[in-house]
Amino acid sequence: MFRSHTNGALNAQHINQEVILSGWVQKSRDKGFIIWVDLRDRYGITQLVFDTERTADEIMEKARKLHREFVIQVKGKVIERESKNTSIPTGEIEVLVEDLVILNEAKNPPFTIEDKTDGGEDLRMKYRYLDIRRNPVKNKLIFRSKVASEIRNYLTHQEFIEVETPYLIKSTPEGARDFVVPSRMNEGQFYALPQSPQTFKQLLMVGGMDKYFQLVKCFRDEDLRADRQPEFTQIDCEMAFVEQEDILTTFEGLTKHLLKQLNNVEVAEFPRMTYEEAMKTYGNDKPDIRFGMKFGELNEVSQHKDFKVFNEAELVVGIAVPGGASKSRKEIDQLIKWVQRPQVGAKGMVYVKCNEDGSFKSSVDKFYTHEDLQAWAEKTQAKAGDLICVLSGEANKTRAQLSALRMELAEQLGLRKSDEFAPLWVVDFPLLEWDEETERFHAMHHPFTSPKKEDIALLATAPGKVRANAYDLVLNGNEIGGGSIRIHDQKTQAMMFDYLGFTPEEAQAQFGFLMDAFQYGAPPHGGIAFGFDRLVAILGGQESIRDYIAFPKNNSGRDVMIDAPAKLDQAQLKELHLKLNLKS
Amino acid sequence: MFRSHTNGALNAQHINQEVILSGWVQKSRDKGFIIWVDLRDRYGITQLVFDTERTADEIMEKARKLHREFVIQVKGKVIERESKNTSIPTGEIEVLVEDLVILNEAKNPPFTIEDKTDGGEDLRMKYRYLDIRRNPVKNKLIFRSKVASEIRNYLTHQEFIEVETPYLIKSTPEGARDFVVPSRMNEGQFYALPQSPQTFKQLLMVGGMDKYFQLVKCFRDEDLRADRQPEFTQIDCEMAFVEQEDILTTFEGLTKHLLKQLNNVEVAEFPRMTYEEAMKTYGNDKPDIRFGMKFGELNEVSQHKDFKVFNEAELVVGIAVPGGASKSRKEIDQLIKWVQRPQVGAKGMVYVKCNEDGSFKSSVDKFYTHEDLQAWAEKTQAKAGDLICVLSGEANKTRAQLSALRMELAEQLGLRKSDEFAPLWVVDFPLLEWDEETERFHAMHHPFTSPKKEDIALLATAPGKVRANAYDLVLNGNEIGGGSIRIHDQKTQAMMFDYLGFTPEEAQAQFGFLMDAFQYGAPPHGGIAFGFDRLVAILGGQESIRDYIAFPKNNSGRDVMIDAPAKLDQAQLKELHLKLNLKS
Repeated sequence: MFRSHTNGALNAQHINQEVILSGWVQKSRDKGFIIWVDLRDRYGITQLVFDTERTADEIMEKARKLHREFVIQVKGKVIERESKNTSIPTGEIEVLVEDLVILNEAKNPPFTIEDKTDGGEDLRMKYRYLDIRRNPVKNKLIFRSKVASEIRNYLTHQEFIEVETPYLIKSTPEGARDFVVPSRMNEGQFYALPQSPQTFKQLLMVGGMDKYFQLVKCFRDEDLRADRQPEFTQIDCEMAFVEQEDILTTFEGLTKHLLKQLNNVEVAEFPRMTYEEAMKTYGNDKPDIRFGMKFGELNEVSQHKDFKVFNEAELVVGIAVPGGASKSRKEIDQLIKWVQRPQVGAKGMVYVKCNEDGSFKSSVDKFYTHEDLQAWAEKTQAKAGDLICVLSGEANKTRAQLSALRMELAEQLGLRKSDEFAPLWVVDFPLLEWDEETERFHAMHHPFTSPKKEDIALLATAPGKVRANAYDLVLNGNEIGGGSIRIHDQKTQAMMFDYLGFTPEEAQAQFGFLMDAFQYGAPPHGGIAFGFDRLVAILGGQESIRDYIAFPKNNSGRDVMIDAPAKLDQAQLKELHLKLNLKS
Repeated sequence: MFRSHTNGALNAQHINQEVILSGWVQKSRDKGFIIWVDLRDRYGITQLVFDTERTADEIMEKARKLHREFVIQVKGKVIERESKNTSIPTGEIEVLVEDLVILNEAKNPPFTIEDKTDGGEDLRMKYRYLDIRRNPVKNKLIFRSKVASEIRNYLTHQEFIEVETPYLIKSTPEGARDFVVPSRMNEGQFYALPQSPQTFKQLLMVGGMDKYFQLVKCFRDEDLRADRQPEFTQIDCEMAFVEQEDILTTFEGLTKHLLKQLNNVEVAEFPRMTYEEAMKTYGNDKPDIRFGMKFGELNEVSQHKDFKVFNEAELVVGIAVPGGASKSRKEIDQLIKWVQRPQVGAKGMVYVKCNEDGSFKSSVDKFYTHEDLQAWAEKTQAKAGDLICVLSGEANKTRAQLSALRMELAEQLGLRKSDEFAPLWVVDFPLLEWDEETERFHAMHHPFTSPKKEDIALLATAPGKVRANAYDLVLNGNEIGGGSIRIHDQKTQAMMFDYLGFTPEEAQAQFGFLMDAFQYGAPPHGGIAFGFDRLVAILGGQESIRDYIAFPKNNSGRDVMIDAPAKLDQAQLKELHLKLNLKS
C-alpha cells in the first residue's frame, strides 16, 4: 500500500495516528538538526518533519538527499504543528517521519512547479506533464471534469440519451476544411473527421431518439488563430417535437444549473434580443451586457449641419464612457490612436466631454451647438462626467469598430468582471449572408437551418432579409452556444441547397442520405451546440481556453510535447495508396 | 407546443384529460365507422381512436389517409379503453381524437418497423435511421447511455477525473496499424488517430492527476473481422501510487456496481486465476466459468499404452460433457467433424461414454482397460451419464482446440446463459510472447507493462517465462478489460524497448517524451482499459456489439448509410500535399 491518506486529508483529528503518505517533494528546508519537507499530491500539501532527536540517522541522511519533485513514500506519526498555517486544510499538523522510501528521483524541472512559475509558454507546452502539476492548470482540468459531469447529470435527468456518433465520416465541401483520413481498405478513398455531428444528430431525430446529447470532439482544419484549436469539444444536443421556445427553455435551464452548481450564482430569466437589436445596440451579435455603454445612433441629430464627415456617413453612432470626461487630452489621443489601429480600422473619432457643470467640450465644437450636443448626450444616455465617443462611416463597419472600442473601454474600466455572469439569447438571425468572395449567399448557421415561416416569401425577393429560426446563447460577450430549428422536409431542404448554389447532383452526393431520411417520416426537430472548451473557461472566469485543455496544440497545430504531426515511412504511405506531393 | 405528454405517459389516472400527443403511426386499423391508430415515440405507444359518431368528418377523412410512419400530432381526450391491453403501461386508455395534424408524410419504409423486422442486415444498415426506430435497437442505445452514465457516476464518486486526451497524435510502429491524418499546415507530415490514450494517461500520472478516466473513441486500421469496428470506445483508466491489488479492488467495485445497477445481479468476490492456470484448466486466457467442463490432463493415465497417437502427443487432455453419454453415434460423429473443421483444426477426437451402470464405452476400447478409463473419468471429473471428449497433440494447439469444443458444447447445452454473470480476474500474464513471423519477442500487453520484480533476472535467460504485472477482467468468456502496472522509471523502460528490438534512436524518436517524463519524478502507476462496446453488449445479454453502436461500419470499414469513405477532389488532395498512388 502506497498511502493510507492523501496529502489533503490530514488535520488535527488525526493527531497521534500512524499514517503512510506518498507524493512529490514540493520543497525541502534543511536547518541541519531539523528538515521540513512539503509533500504534494493532487489533493494538497502535507508538511513532513525529520529531526535529529526523533528521526533515525539513516532516515535523516536520506532526507538530506531529497530535491524538488522527487517522488517519495513516508511512514510516520501525525503531530501538532508548532507554527500553524491556517491557509491550508492540513496546516494544523505535520507528520514526524519514521521511514522514508525514495520511489523515484527527479531531475531539476525546466521551470518551477509553483502557482506562479518562471516557465514561458513554449517550455510549459513542451513539458506539459510538468505544467499539469501546477495548481492553476491542475485545478482547471479538475474544473472541466466537474462541468462535464454536471452537464451530463442535468441532461440525463431530463431524459436525454447520450449517443456516440462516428468519427470516421465523409468529407463535405460546406463550411470549414475537413481533416481527412485515407482508407487503406478502400483504395483512393478518404474518411473525414467530423466538424460537428450535425447530420447524425438529425438522423437520430428521424430515428426517434427524441432527446439526444453528446460531449464530442470535433475537428476543423483552419488556419489557427490565437486560442483556436484544431480539435475541440462540443456539447451537442438535439430534440424532436420542439419549437424554438422548448429549446431555449431547456438550455436556459442547463446554463442556470451550471452557474448555480459551479459558481454558486443565481441568474434571472435570460433576456432575449433579436440579432438586429444586438447589432444596433452593441454592434455585435454576442454583446457583453455585464455593463451598459449602449449605442446611441446620432444621424438625426448630427447630420445636415456643417460637419462634412458626418453628413457623408451612412451611420453616426456613439457611446457614453462612464466618468470619461476626466480623461486628459493625451488619454483621449490614445483612444483615437487605438480605434485607428489596422485591427479596428476607424478613420478617426469624435468625442464630447460632458462636464459636471452641464457644459460640453467636444472635438467638433465649431460645428455643433450646446443643444446639438445635449441631444447626443440624450441619445447615448450620457450623464455629467461621461465622455461620448462617436464613430461614423459605413454602417456595418462603424458598428464593428464602435463595438471593439466599447469592449476595450470596458476592459480598461474593469467592467468585465470574471465573477459576474450575464447570459442572454440572441434570436432571429438572418438565414443567409452574402459572401463577397464567392459572390453568393451562404448559410449563416448551416444549410439545415429553417427559415421563419413568415419570411419564406422573401427568399425570392430579398434573401438577405429572411430570418432563421436560429439562436445563440451569449455569455459575457462570448457565443457559448448556437442552434436552430431544422428543416425537416425534403422539399424545403432541396430548395435550400438550391439557394446555396448546390446543383441537385451535388446536394444528392453530399446529403442524399439526409434528404432520403426526410422522406420516411422526419419529426420537427431542432437543437443547439455549445463550445465546451469556451464554456468551461468562462465559467472558470478566464478568457483563454488553452489551460482548460490537457494537451493543447500550438498555433501551427503542433503538439510540441510529443512532436506531432510527423513524417510517415514510405511503406506506410504505400499501404495507404498515397504519395507525397511536396513543393520542395 | 407539440405535445403535452409522451406516448408512454398516459394511464387510467389521466382519464377525461385533454392531451396533445405527437409521434409516428405504428399501425392503423380502419374498420369504416371506427379507426384505431397506434401512435409511437421513444417512450411507448398510445392508442388513438377516431369514430364517426364522435369525430368530425374532416378529421375522419384525414385519419383515413394515415399510413405507417407518418408523423402526426393529435389533440384529444383520454378515455377508458374497452378491451384493455395489460402488457403496456398505456393499455388501459385510449385517446379520442378531436384534432389531427399531419406533420410529415412517409414513404413506405424498406422494412417493417417492428421488433421482428423483415429487413436484412444490409438494408437495415443503409437505413440505419429507420432501424433505430425499432425497439431492439433503440433500447440497446438507451442501455448503452445508461451504462456510460453509471460508469461515470461510480468513478466520479471515487474521485476519478475525466480528462480528454487528444485525437490528433503521432503514429507509432508498435501494435496495430494507425489511421493517419495528413497535415495541411505541416507539409508532408501526418497525425495519427489514437489506438488508445496509453502514453497520455501515463503522462497524466506523471503530471499528478492521480486518478484518471475517460470514455474515449479509439481507432485501429485492421483487417476487419466480424464484430470488429475500426473505431471503438474504451473506458480508459489510470491510477498513481497503486499496486495491482488497488486496481483490481477498484475495478471489481465498478463491475459489481454495473451488474447491480443494470442487471440487478449481486456477484461474490471475483475469483482470480493465473494465466497459466487458465490455459491449463480452460485452454483459454478468457475462460467462461459460468459452467464447468474443466480440462483433465490425461498424459499420465493414457500414455505408455499401445495407443500410438497418444504416446506421441505432447498433451492428452479431455473434458466431461454433462449427460453426453446419451449421444448417438451420429451425434458423436458430428462432434468429431466439428473439431476437424479447419477453423478448429484437430486431427480427431477420442471419446468415452460413462454409462449409468458404471461401465465405459470408448472409441479406444482396444487400447485401454476399464481401470484406465476410470482414471480418465477421475481426471476429467466425469460422472455417470457424461461423455469424455479427448484431444491430443502439440500442447498449445490442443488446448485451443479443446477450448473451442468446450465452448461449442456449452452453447449446444444452453450453459451460456445470458442472464448469468461470472466475472474473474486472470493475472500473471507473460510479459513477452514469441512472434514466429518476425522471429522476436513482442510485448504481450504493450511495451509499458512492468515485469514482476522476482522474474526480472529471467529476462536474460528465459524471456518467455517472465511474468508481467498484467491482468485481464474476464466476463462470460470475454476479455472485457485489461491492464497492468506500468514501468515508471526511465532505465527499465529503455531496457524494455531494447528487449523488444527498438534501437535507442527508434525508442527516442517514438517514445522520447515518455522517457523524458520519467526523469522528472514519475510516480508508480498502473491502469486498465475496458472495451466499452463489448462490455455493454455482455451486460445487455448479447454476443454482437453492432446494435449497441448507433452508426456502425460494415466489414469493409464502410458506412453504407452515408457512403463513406469517399473520393476527394484534386484541389483538396493538393492542399494536403498528397497524390494518389493507385494500383489501377
